[in-house]
Amino acid sequence: MSISPGDTLAAIRERKPLVHQITNYVVMNETANATLALGALPVMAHAPEEVEEMVGLASALVLNIGTLSEHWVEAMLLAGGAATARGIPVVFDPVGVGATEYRTRTARRILDLVDVTVLRGNAGEVATLVGADAEVRGVESMASGIEPAELARTAAQRLGVVASVTGPVDHVSDGERVLAIANGHPLLAAVTGTGCIATALTGCFLAAKPDEPLEAAAEALAAYGVAAEDAADGAEGPGTFHARLYDALAALHPITLDERVRISEL
Amino acid sequence: MSISPGDTLAAIRERKPLVHQITNYVVMNETANATLALGALPVMAHAPEEVEEMVGLASALVLNIGTLSEHWVEAMLLAGGAATARGIPVVFDPVGVGATEYRTRTARRILDLVDVTVLRGNAGEVATLVGADAEVRGVESMASGIEPAELARTAAQRLGVVASVTGPVDHVSDGERVLAIANGHPLLAAVTGTGCIATALTGCFLAAKPDEPLEAAAEALAAYGVAAEDAADGAEGPGTFHARLYDALAALHPITLDERVRISEL
Amino acid sequence: MSISPGDTLAAIRERKPLVHQITNYVVMNETANATLALGALPVMAHAPEEVEEMVGLASALVLNIGTLSEHWVEAMLLAGGAATARGIPVVFDPVGVGATEYRTRTARRILDLVDVTVLRGNAGEVATLVGADAEVRGVESMASGIEPAELARTAAQRLGVVASVTGPVDHVSDGERVLAIANGHPLLAAVTGTGCIATALTGCFLAAKPDEPLEAAAEALAAYGVAAEDAADGAEGPGTFHARLYDALAALHPITLDERVRISEL
Repeated sequence: MSISPGDTLAAIRERKPLVHQITNYVVMNETANATLALGALPVMAHAPEEVEEMVGLASALVLNIGTLSEHWVEAMLLAGGAATARGIPVVFDPVGVGATEYRTRTARRILDLVDVTVLRGNAGEVATLVGADAEVRGVESMASGIEPAELARTAAQRLGVVASVTGPVDHVSDGERVLAIANGHPLLAAVTGTGCIATALTGCFLAAKPDEPLEAAAEALAAYGVAAEDAADGAEGPGTFHARLYDALAALHPITLDERVRISEL
Repeated sequence: MSISPGDTLAAIRERKPLVHQITNYVVMNETANATLALGALPVMAHAPEEVEEMVGLASALVLNIGTLSEHWVEAMLLAGGAATARGIPVVFDPVGVGATEYRTRTARRILDLVDVTVLRGNAGEVATLVGADAEVRGVESMASGIEPAELARTAAQRLGVVASVTGPVDHVSDGERVLAIANGHPLLAAVTGTGCIATALTGCFLAAKPDEPLEAAAEALAAYGVAAEDAADGAEGPGTFHARLYDALAALHPITLDERVRISEL
Repeated sequence: MSISPGDTLAAIRERKPLVHQITNYVVMNETANATLALGALPVMAHAPEEVEEMVGLASALVLNIGTLSEHWVEAMLLAGGAATARGIPVVFDPVGVGATEYRTRTARRILDLVDVTVLRGNAGEVATLVGADAEVRGVESMASGIEPAELARTAAQRLGVVASVTGPVDHVSDGERVLAIANGHPLLAAVTGTGCIATALTGCFLAAKPDEPLEAAAEALAAYGVAAEDAADGAEGPGTFHARLYDALAALHPITLDERVRISEL
């Protein structure tokens, strides 16, 4: 195991990996700006005519079904297939899965057809995908019947992914090991798309550390959590926090970052 | 009559109603964030495969034709039909109606087929829908030939809705009574999507007070206006005002809110 | 030649021209807000049923292929055709051209079928369109083999447009003359969509000065650059810079603007 968000951040800033994102209408600007603030390069492209070529230029692919529709799902499958064929890591965010049958069916379809490297969701979404009881209201996770560390481990085992379950404390598991990340701030829950940003940043870290997805996913959440802590300091509410979040991502420093992350192995 | 934006705000924050929004690409992030800052839960979903199921989970439906196209209009009609069948209140924002024949035709189609509870628009848009002279440039209302209180009353009567006509002073009517709301700030006109946010917040108040749509619509505009007044205090222009608007919505307090609202019955 | 960004800004604020924008999902809110902050009126509309009517109401049309798909390209061609027929100036932003064959083919199709007044892109995009070597990664331009003033002149000659090539120093050419604009700030490169905003503002200046597209394009970039300089002063990173950019656009003053612009003829 080698966990150093600072080293991976330095690598991201040096290589500026391209992160291809097929995501939802609500957060496109936000995830692109977070990617850019961190130091990677975002590209949003969803036309079937170009997604396979575009993903071939990228170092990671981010799929997010927040405002899904059939054309977009087809683009995700095309891009996901190309990524799988080329060994490009894929992060999948099953936004709102469990809220409607269509979301659940689509998320399972993507998990079946694409070699998903990291599944990033909240407890309710991930619980839905492992068949556990969960309360999901729209795209907000309310509760899950399983303890989150166990949920992450179970999801990783059953779905064959690194499971990244975010919440007050985040839990990431490859099915054997479980890492808990205690960075973050409650204001993240007051801004829409902060989960989607976590997914996009996971893509950035995976792009720089593709062979260690468990560590990359944990590092991404820790770095994001530190940025959120910094952004909250001086914010007057969710709006100024949101603007300051990009400042804080851009200001993350590889050396101080490692001193501040709170990642522990359970 | 029972008008208390503070009491309704407290109910919103306690119940966290889900507000399903089928809206335009320009403002999705903004209306979701405003909904969340106020204390309700937004969900954006437009696929025909899921809108009826999603609206069944929601306490209010918001329809907005700002960047309409046929697939989206069909989703609005499906969701609107399901809302009508289940008695879920619907707010409709006829963005840019009058600018093109397509917008006018579509707005009339939605009003015909969906049981719209509250119609929220600017003077030019609402005047267009009642067949009065209006000047609309793109999605900006320039002027209407009718005095706004009369316009709200006429629209309510002819269209069978609660009409919520926003402007320097807002006017809300159920066809008999007219409430005028004098809260707000000129900077609202300098930021895109602030009308769409008014519509989304109307959905939040309706979700908590579905049986009194006249009062709920007036309360929503008053609360929003108070937040705008707070956001303007310390803003250096439209950009910082915009960020501070979410801070101000989140900081609204049920007790002080009631002291500050300026709602009068005409 | 008559270059006065201040005079054109005053005309924009007096006439409030409508600028019809068919652009990408990532930046719609941002380009609408920049248009509004400057003093013009944005309208986003892309349905084939209304684009020709909408562009007939507008004083300029902005086309941007950042998140292109076939339906949107068809809307751009319809609107572009109507603009051409009515003599309405068109600004075209070939976002990411060179990254995929689909983008390159589509950009050439638009240049062939629409009478583009100003082509606004970064060096890599414009170099791709003139057939020169270029490195494009996703939608980010990395480098071009041609010196930028020469690139702008060559593009203008070969493509029959005013070429507006943005970078650390911007270069605008009508094929004979070349204007260099030295305003701006490095933080612009840290926020997504700032190139798209440059394109939208070019549309605003063209709307007020349609007969002098070379000057209008240079003035737009100079005014934007001055606003970016102001926004950076006091910003703590890309997020607060972004919010302050709209403040700064709204605060531009016709008289002081002319004193601060750094436009030179090469």
